[in-house]
Order: sequence, then C-alpha cells, then structure tokens
Amino acid sequence: MIDDALKRYMPASDVHPPTIHDAMTYSLFAGGKRLRPILTIASSETVGGGTDSILPFACAIELIHTYSLIHDDLPAMDDDDYRRGVLTNHKVYGEAAAILAGDALLTEAFRLMTDANVISALPPGAVLDVINNVAAAAGSSGMVGGQIVDLESEEKAVDLSCVEYIHTRKTGALIIASVTTGAKLGGGTEEEVRSLSAYGEAIGLAFQIVDDILNVEGEEKLLGKSVGSDADRGKATYPGVLGLDGSKKRAQELIDKAVDVLGRFDEQADPLRMIAKYIGDRKG
Amino acid sequence: MIDDALKRYMPASDVHPPTIHDAMTYSLFAGGKRLRPILTIASSETVGGGTDSILPFACAIELIHTYSLIHDDLPAMDDDDYRRGVLTNHKVYGEAAAILAGDALLTEAFRLMTDANVISALPPGAVLDVINNVAAAAGSSGMVGGQIVDLESEEKAVDLSCVEYIHTRKTGALIIASVTTGAKLGGGTEEEVRSLSAYGEAIGLAFQIVDDILNVEGEEKLLGKSVGSDADRGKATYPGVLGLDGSKKRAQELIDKAVDVLGRFDEQADPLRMIAKYIGDRKG
Repeated sequence: MIDDALKRYMPASDVHPPTIHDAMTYSLFAGGKRLRPILTIASSETVGGGTDSILPFACAIELIHTYSLIHDDLPAMDDDDYRRGVLTNHKVYGEAAAILAGDALLTEAFRLMTDANVISALPPGAVLDVINNVAAAAGSSGMVGGQIVDLESEEKAVDLSCVEYIHTRKTGALIIASVTTGAKLGGGTEEEVRSLSAYGEAIGLAFQIVDDILNVEGEEKLLGKSVGSDADRGKATYPGVLGLDGSKKRAQELIDKAVDVLGRFDEQADPLRMIAKYIGDRKG
Repeated sequence: MIDDALKRYMPASDVHPPTIHDAMTYSLFAGGKRLRPILTIASSETVGGGTDSILPFACAIELIHTYSLIHDDLPAMDDDDYRRGVLTNHKVYGEAAAILAGDALLTEAFRLMTDANVISALPPGAVLDVINNVAAAAGSSGMVGGQIVDLESEEKAVDLSCVEYIHTRKTGALIIASVTTGAKLGGGTEEEVRSLSAYGEAIGLAFQIVDDILNVEGEEKLLGKSVGSDADRGKATYPGVLGLDGSKKRAQELIDKAVDVLGRFDEQADPLRMIAKYIGDRKG
C-alpha cells in the first residue's frame, strides 16, 4: 500500500530533468522496510483514525528517511558503497546527483504534506502542527543533530549518555514523529498521543541498539551491508559502551517498555505490539 | 529587520550540537543581500498586506536560498572556495558539516513556516498553500532541477532554451515564490498575485542574466568571487549563447517588462520597482 502510494505521489522517474527523478526513485525503491510509514498508519488506526487520509504523511516521512540515508552514505559522511545489498545512490549517480536527490526528497516531503489534492480531508491546523513536529524531528536538534555528533564522535572515547544522545536523535526522533503524526492526524487525545510518543521513543532507541548489535554479530547476507563497519570506523555504539550482553538486555527492556505503554489500547494496537517484537527479533 | 528576525527565529550558534548551529549561522550571516525576503515583504505591502506577519516566511525563503548556496559550493558541485568574499561553508567546517548545515537550513525553513508561535495571525489554509508553492519552487522540478541540468550542461554545447530552462529554475523559481508568498499572505487577489508572479518571473531571469554578465566583466572586489569561473567550467550562460550585448539587451527587456506588469499598482509598489532597477544596475 505504501509502495503504491509513493508511486502515485512522486514524480515518475522520467519526468524532466530525468537524472534527478531517476536518482530519487532509485533509493526510494531500494528495498526499504517501510517501518516509519507503517508506524504512522498503525498509530492512526490505534486511536481509531483513518488509513488513506494519513498516507501522504506516512509517505513524506519515508521520503525524509530516504534522503537521510542517501546523505549518510556519501563519501564525506560514512562513505558506504552498499545499502540493503545494492549500490548506494552516489555509486550509481555520482556525488553531485546524490546530494541533490537527497535535497529533492527532503523538499518533496514538505510539498507532499501540503498538497491540497491529497490532504484536504484533514484540518489545516492539525496538518501544520504535524509538519512542524516532523521538521523539528528531522532538523538540527533532531536527526541532523544526531548525525553530526555521530560523525564527530568517531575514534573518540564516548560514554553512554553520548551514545544515547546520538541514537535518540539520529534514529529516534523521526521514529517518534512517525508515531505522533499518525496519532495526531488520527484524532488521538493528548493522553493517547503521549502514550504513543513514549512507545515511539522506546522502539526508536531499541531499533538503533539492535542495529548496533547486528553490526557486530549479524549476517551480511541478511543485512545487505558489511558487518563490523562500526568498529572499523570507531563509531559510538551501544555494544561499545555496554558490551553485547548489556546492549541486548537494554534493547529487551525497551521493547518490554514499548509494549507496556500500549496497555491502555485494545487489539487495535496489536500491529504496534507486533512491530515492537519485530524490532527486538530482527536479523536484517 | 530581516537580520534581526533571522536571529530571533534561528537556534543560536551555541545551541547543542554546536558545530551544526555554528555552520548554519556562519553562512546565514555571510553578507547576503536578502533580496528574496525583501521581495516577500515588498510584495505583501504592495497588495496592502502586513510586514511582521510575513517575516517568518520571508526568513524561511532566505534559509532555503542559503542552503542552496552551501550545497552548490561543495567540491562535488561547483567546488567554490569563496562566496561574497569569505570562505565557503565547507572550507571552514568541512564537507560533512556543510552538507548537514544545508540539510538543516532547508528543514528549519519548513519548521519555521509551521511554527504556531509566529504564524498564528495567518489563515492555516493560506499558509499550507504558500508552503506548497515554496516547496515546489525549491524541489526537483524547480531549483534542484535547475541545478542538476546546470551541472550536466557543463562543457556541452547548449542552446538558448537550455540556458533559459536552467536559469528559470535554478534562480527564477525561488524568486517567483518569494514574490507570490508575500502577495498571497498579504491578501492579494488572484489577479494581483498573477501580476506579481509575472514580475517575479521577469526579475528572476534578469537577475541570473546579470549574474552571468558580471561573471564575464564584473569586478572581483565587488562580487566577492572569481570572475571568469563560468567560462573556465564551460557553464551554460546567457553570454555564451547570446553574447554580452545580446545578454544586456535581454536583461534590460526583462527589467522593463517587470516594471510594466506593476502598472496596476500605485506607489505601494515603488520598492518592487526599485528592486527591478537595482537588479538591472547591480555591480556585485
């Protein structure tokens, strides 16, 4: 459903100028798990909200996530050749086009969230509030802020609070925004939004801890990228400060907490419960 | 007024993480002419609209313009060491921080345009419409689209329609959006918005033609950057296809046209008339 919506909303890969639309499309359909848009929809449904009306926002968050991956992979950043088993954007289109494809995906996200053709069923005030949350989560005190501290922490001795700072911003902030976007646009009460935000906070951090663990002991075939790259680069990771066992324990505590804060919701929250468990169990 | 507003709206340069906010602030206060925000305010005032209520949008467009300059200057793009007489962002902060500072400025623009603390005086529907226009102007069929065709056209034989395609998107699209943002939020009628959009189209193209001309025969001291760099890179320019005299003639025609389409407005449009003349006469 999300793939179909992305195809519907995005300019086709042959729209002029072709290079930019081709490069945008390449990374957008390069095998992402669609975790964030699924979270947005599942959160809306949890509070009794709609699915179709939320789709532009779910997709916009996936565009922002995709842009961040393209820029993270650049030679000046993590310098990765592969992601999800396929060549990274700049390996296919060159650095200039990859930077611009990221820029365009980020911009397109905000164009989509304000497109009168697809958002008219929602109250404009709520839409503005949600866009503001998404932008704050993606910006200099959120995702981008986490990425710069991540880069600056390479090859340095870091403590748990620094690793947590990086992870809660680089990965956590947009995951929380995915959940609260669905909860708010789905018509959730303030308390419901707060519970779901706590859920997002817990799974967001758990997701990144599991990522760190898989980078130590995962299988390259399932991951689609190199194992051991964090250690090679002296990255700030949970296993680096808590060890593997300590990291696994922490991830499980967060998954348990995520399921726990869903206690107020009935079986409509089952997809969110399943996602929490999937994050704890994932191998790739 | 715009500098003060930018300082008020933006996170201070020492907000954590400091590198990103310092890099963002550096380029934002590196001597820009503030043409776009001035156009936004002047357009609002031309249709009898306010000034203060428009400031967040005027500033947001300046953030988008600044991000585009930081990314354009990167080694993978135009590889410029100086802009406006000072070192480019990546020469001071490194490539990774410069890419992220651009990303953060773009994101911050959309956060600012949806910030309930500063936009509450405006109707939410009109705000969404304006954000949508700005995003479309900045995106893959606008500014980013123009930039990629610009890069792809280096060292190639290009015709007038290709140069016009690049210039109307790379520079023109955001200038038109600056004008229409002010006109719409200032409460202009559809016809007024259309007239002002035509004005923006004319001065936007004229601005870039003059830029091309100055790159051939301008004074480096006034420009703050190297003269002759376009020719060195085989860039697609107006002097390249029309010659210097033909380019000057075309720029003047566009300035005349810009003043002409303002005919329906009284002296409230005088600032816009002065800006058109300034664009035709500028030396740096």
